[in-house]
Amino acid sequence: MSEKITLGIIGAGRIAHVHAKSLFFHIPEAEVKMIADPFLSPQAEEWAAKFGIKNTSKDYKDIINDPEIDAVLVCSSTDTHAQITQEAALAGKHVFCEKPIDHDIAKIRKTLEVVKKAGVQLQIGFNRRFDHNFKALKDAVVSKKIGDLHMVKVTSRDPGPPPIEYVKVSGGMFMDMTIHDFDMVRFLTGSEVKTVFASAAVLVDPAIGKAGDVDTAVITMEMENGTIAVIDNSRKAVYGYDQRAEVFGSLGAVATGNDTTNTAVFSSGEGVIAEKPLFFFLERYEQAFADEMKSFIAALRNGEETPVTGMDGLRPVLIAAAAKKSLETGKKEPVESV
Amino acid sequence: MSEKITLGIIGAGRIAHVHAKSLFFHIPEAEVKMIADPFLSPQAEEWAAKFGIKNTSKDYKDIINDPEIDAVLVCSSTDTHAQITQEAALAGKHVFCEKPIDHDIAKIRKTLEVVKKAGVQLQIGFNRRFDHNFKALKDAVVSKKIGDLHMVKVTSRDPGPPPIEYVKVSGGMFMDMTIHDFDMVRFLTGSEVKTVFASAAVLVDPAIGKAGDVDTAVITMEMENGTIAVIDNSRKAVYGYDQRAEVFGSLGAVATGNDTTNTAVFSSGEGVIAEKPLFFFLERYEQAFADEMKSFIAALRNGEETPVTGMDGLRPVLIAAAAKKSLETGKKEPVESV
Amino acid sequence: MSEKITLGIIGAGRIAHVHAKSLFFHIPEAEVKMIADPFLSPQAEEWAAKFGIKNTSKDYKDIINDPEIDAVLVCSSTDTHAQITQEAALAGKHVFCEKPIDHDIAKIRKTLEVVKKAGVQLQIGFNRRFDHNFKALKDAVVSKKIGDLHMVKVTSRDPGPPPIEYVKVSGGMFMDMTIHDFDMVRFLTGSEVKTVFASAAVLVDPAIGKAGDVDTAVITMEMENGTIAVIDNSRKAVYGYDQRAEVFGSLGAVATGNDTTNTAVFSSGEGVIAEKPLFFFLERYEQAFADEMKSFIAALRNGEETPVTGMDGLRPVLIAAAAKKSLETGKKEPVESV
Amino acid sequence: MSEKITLGIIGAGRIAHVHAKSLFFHIPEAEVKMIADPFLSPQAEEWAAKFGIKNTSKDYKDIINDPEIDAVLVCSSTDTHAQITQEAALAGKHVFCEKPIDHDIAKIRKTLEVVKKAGVQLQIGFNRRFDHNFKALKDAVVSKKIGDLHMVKVTSRDPGPPPIEYVKVSGGMFMDMTIHDFDMVRFLTGSEVKTVFASAAVLVDPAIGKAGDVDTAVITMEMENGTIAVIDNSRKAVYGYDQRAEVFGSLGAVATGNDTTNTAVFSSGEGVIAEKPLFFFLERYEQAFADEMKSFIAALRNGEETPVTGMDGLRPVLIAAAAKKSLETGKKEPVESV
Repeated sequence: MSEKITLGIIGAGRIAHVHAKSLFFHIPEAEVKMIADPFLSPQAEEWAAKFGIKNTSKDYKDIINDPEIDAVLVCSSTDTHAQITQEAALAGKHVFCEKPIDHDIAKIRKTLEVVKKAGVQLQIGFNRRFDHNFKALKDAVVSKKIGDLHMVKVTSRDPGPPPIEYVKVSGGMFMDMTIHDFDMVRFLTGSEVKTVFASAAVLVDPAIGKAGDVDTAVITMEMENGTIAVIDNSRKAVYGYDQRAEVFGSLGAVATGNDTTNTAVFSSGEGVIAEKPLFFFLERYEQAFADEMKSFIAALRNGEETPVTGMDGLRPVLIAAAAKKSLETGKKEPVESV
Repeated sequence: MSEKITLGIIGAGRIAHVHAKSLFFHIPEAEVKMIADPFLSPQAEEWAAKFGIKNTSKDYKDIINDPEIDAVLVCSSTDTHAQITQEAALAGKHVFCEKPIDHDIAKIRKTLEVVKKAGVQLQIGFNRRFDHNFKALKDAVVSKKIGDLHMVKVTSRDPGPPPIEYVKVSGGMFMDMTIHDFDMVRFLTGSEVKTVFASAAVLVDPAIGKAGDVDTAVITMEMENGTIAVIDNSRKAVYGYDQRAEVFGSLGAVATGNDTTNTAVFSSGEGVIAEKPLFFFLERYEQAFADEMKSFIAALRNGEETPVTGMDGLRPVLIAAAAKKSLETGKKEPVESV
Repeated sequence: MSEKITLGIIGAGRIAHVHAKSLFFHIPEAEVKMIADPFLSPQAEEWAAKFGIKNTSKDYKDIINDPEIDAVLVCSSTDTHAQITQEAALAGKHVFCEKPIDHDIAKIRKTLEVVKKAGVQLQIGFNRRFDHNFKALKDAVVSKKIGDLHMVKVTSRDPGPPPIEYVKVSGGMFMDMTIHDFDMVRFLTGSEVKTVFASAAVLVDPAIGKAGDVDTAVITMEMENGTIAVIDNSRKAVYGYDQRAEVFGSLGAVATGNDTTNTAVFSSGEGVIAEKPLFFFLERYEQAFADEMKSFIAALRNGEETPVTGMDGLRPVLIAAAAKKSLETGKKEPVESV
Repeated sequence: MSEKITLGIIGAGRIAHVHAKSLFFHIPEAEVKMIADPFLSPQAEEWAAKFGIKNTSKDYKDIINDPEIDAVLVCSSTDTHAQITQEAALAGKHVFCEKPIDHDIAKIRKTLEVVKKAGVQLQIGFNRRFDHNFKALKDAVVSKKIGDLHMVKVTSRDPGPPPIEYVKVSGGMFMDMTIHDFDMVRFLTGSEVKTVFASAAVLVDPAIGKAGDVDTAVITMEMENGTIAVIDNSRKAVYGYDQRAEVFGSLGAVATGNDTTNTAVFSSGEGVIAEKPLFFFLERYEQAFADEMKSFIAALRNGEETPVTGMDGLRPVLIAAAAKKSLETGKKEPVESV
């Protein structure tokens, strides 16, 4: 399939906008034919037109049933991911599905099975793997620049918590936020999590605690290859989106910092002031979002496996579940095998 | 003129490629209809097609004479800039002309006159004004974040000298390389150069000296607003393209560093190693090139003056001429008035 | 006791040398009268003389029994700390004791009891509290510059493991090395450790594993004030002594880096290279060692409590014991109360 | 002369205090026997006693005439340097003289002649040569780490101007402040200044202009070895004492930053804020002051030439004079030969 890929986008929210924009400006090898959302806003109609999407619908089945559409981007709410992915796969369409596939492990397993039987490609939206900084860390591990890997550290803090209504249906911080970091640990170590231990607290907002969730956590993982990984999370860093990592090994360490809008440093009477991190994921991962989409389109065109498979979608959910259990037991918990 | 702008590109070298790419990927408000170059290479034909340019020609007059073309990008060799710009203007086309307009001051004056009479817009390719770092410096000056401006320092070093054959026809380092820095000093200070003093040497390659040029220089300028500016140049920094600046004033200083591909820092047995600067101008100013083109298209569509006018093209040439004279006299030299 | 303090130093190894030097060069308010070591080397005799110590002995009892000596620095091997501290206290002398007081908790308790009854002062050698960087972190917490504290992160890596013979008698990495970091967590949080969970591995040298110890660890602590702390340790960082920490709270984070011999940054064809961290604890904490000694002498002269008390010596040992237990149980373990 | 060196200090101001403190705390190989100042303050008497100086006098001749005194530190006001240095030399005493020896070139020449005839050692107080950062730059040049040297850049800015009364007698900014930077250029290049060009302005305080001086300057030097050096000065940087330099050569560049009290970086809602530079020369060069004194004492004890000779005292004054002349002529001016 080396000709142009025809796409449909299901869901017209923030992340759909990101992908539509990337596809329009950066990826001439693909074309979005239709976008569907039951609550398609005028704003969405506007940017859809601006990004060259000629057809809109309130019913995602119009995309599933369109024989010209090769692949579907599932950008709808999490609770619909599994169902739509399955329907699309059964209709013979390749799928790019935002993370997580579902909070329910059985549903994810079922989905992966359907996809497998359908023989279509599936890519999960772990965009951070395509970030220039994290790729530099991955390279340092793979190339053995740091020798044998001993430790991975991930710092992942949001500029602010989501609305409480969202917190309630999010599946919890581990499933909603840390899930990216669990993927990052797997990506950087090239290994699977054997056991996970979590400490967590409600320090940002008591309302989050009332909603049954946590907002601050440190999670330690023992990996199958013998290395140790640790993640620290906060739902609120006042200075912005803090996304750093470090890989440490027998020949040294590579650490990455945050990206900023520019390198300007202001020496003032108050101190020597550099820019804050880029505000949030849309800013920090703008290029990564484009690159994950490019890699999806390239995989389809070359008939190759996608760089982030369905299994990569399942495993972080299993880790999140084990982390949640660890919070209750106070023990390190094994991760369910796939 | 709020509809789509139709463009022709004259010259199909490296910088034409940059602009064609920016226009195709980032600027849907414009369309390149034709590219012309007497020595159009197969590679150029290839990228032209890839960037949606349907027509090619060996004769730039095909562009000048095409009534559908609104504006021309002059990306040919420097010695043709003035002539083509004049012809395009006389044909009623707006012009984006790469720097410098010419090495000959009289020719530049004549060109600006023709453009003025023709009533078309002219933008000169001082792309660095659109760089995120230099914009941060400009903002710090304009906003008075650093109080009253006292001093501007520009460091501008290339990763390696151009071929000697190019050096011979380049007009000299001041006209070819420092000219960007002269523009930067005008941009950052918001003032004009009153006098210029230059010290220079041949330290990189004796062949440059034999060709009658210099490769290393420090140039000091006294500005009309009373501030002092200083540029340091080298034709060869082994660590890459070094493009930094600092503005210093009564309330502090803002300095910018180089951009890098990522923020990774490798702590090794040999030291703590960060990335080198982005290799050269195509890498460092990729976004700036796109943004200057966006601003050109926006100026045309809005019928506004371009952000880098013909006068902005003349003045740095006058400064370069004065700097060259200073080298001979050992004195600070006044800059010819426009 | 505002006159000069007369000291005796027991043990003439590396750390005794550090203190003797600090006292001679920086602290005119104290004078070392005697140094005692059963295996006093010629080198030690030499530096003792150079640092103005007039008397040497092979028997530490000569110090204990000298009525002119006000205070004793216990710099002998760890297994003798408790015994000598008790003897000195019983003889009415104030004691500065290197960490840890002992590996045996009962012995430490007994020692503290003796010291208390004797009514003398005791300071434990947690020198890092006096480091300029860690003090800046402490200030940021105490001053509420970062708002309410949420998280503390400590990175502590040695440039290389100690000899295997030492590893065998060291009490294990937690007791020997992490003990400083446990103290740092208490210092920075201003709170006590409620539970501790440890993950550890043998990744640096299998011989360390054969000796029954670990060389790489991540340790998470839940503090009584609700904050979370995490330490990462390695016995070997090829780039040198890595001693960093971060405090994160509701109004921001403060992180410290390593100290270096100078600020020089070398931009080369290989990268942009800064200095490695200062080699090891003697270099990094040179000023901190002097300052802890100054604070000890000042406490004695002012009749005030020392800044690092016997209880500060006991608690990290209790944490280390709990961490060790956690390694076996795979659970977070409570810390024994004092 | 390998026994203890006996010193006298003439002048009891700020810099005398620095040296007395260094000698007392860091240099057991020397002893200050007497300090003399016609206006010896009670504060000075106090610190003199604290630093072990047993004798004070209002008449510096008491030092010159004391046969036990081996060497004299001339820390009095600049206008007395030459006279006292000559008297001390004639009395057979070695001399450490603060910079500058004098503003009058003939007087300096005469002084050097007297010193030479007397056969005593003379060291000039260019303390910055002993700074850890500048030494790293010097090493990078000498070791050819940066290959052949092409360019030296020195940034030297004070936190605030001296009182106008001082400005009037200071000999001008070049003689008073830039003189250190002229020395630094000679030190870093290992070459002599051939020509100097200066641009300067009054931007900090009009009163400085009324007093006939300037407060902001950029000075370019062509060196005998073909390299180019440039200094930028300001009498007032609100963020503190800015003391940086860069050496650039065929194999790269080494640049140094400012020292700070600690490495703490505060990520806040306002930005990412690092510490300001150490406040002023007493803080920044504390260790350098001690090290210059150590090197002076070591030179005396070893009977070797001092590391900063009388000729090193003369040359920067000649450069300053040429820079001043350049301001008037608008030309690069040759530096008078020694």
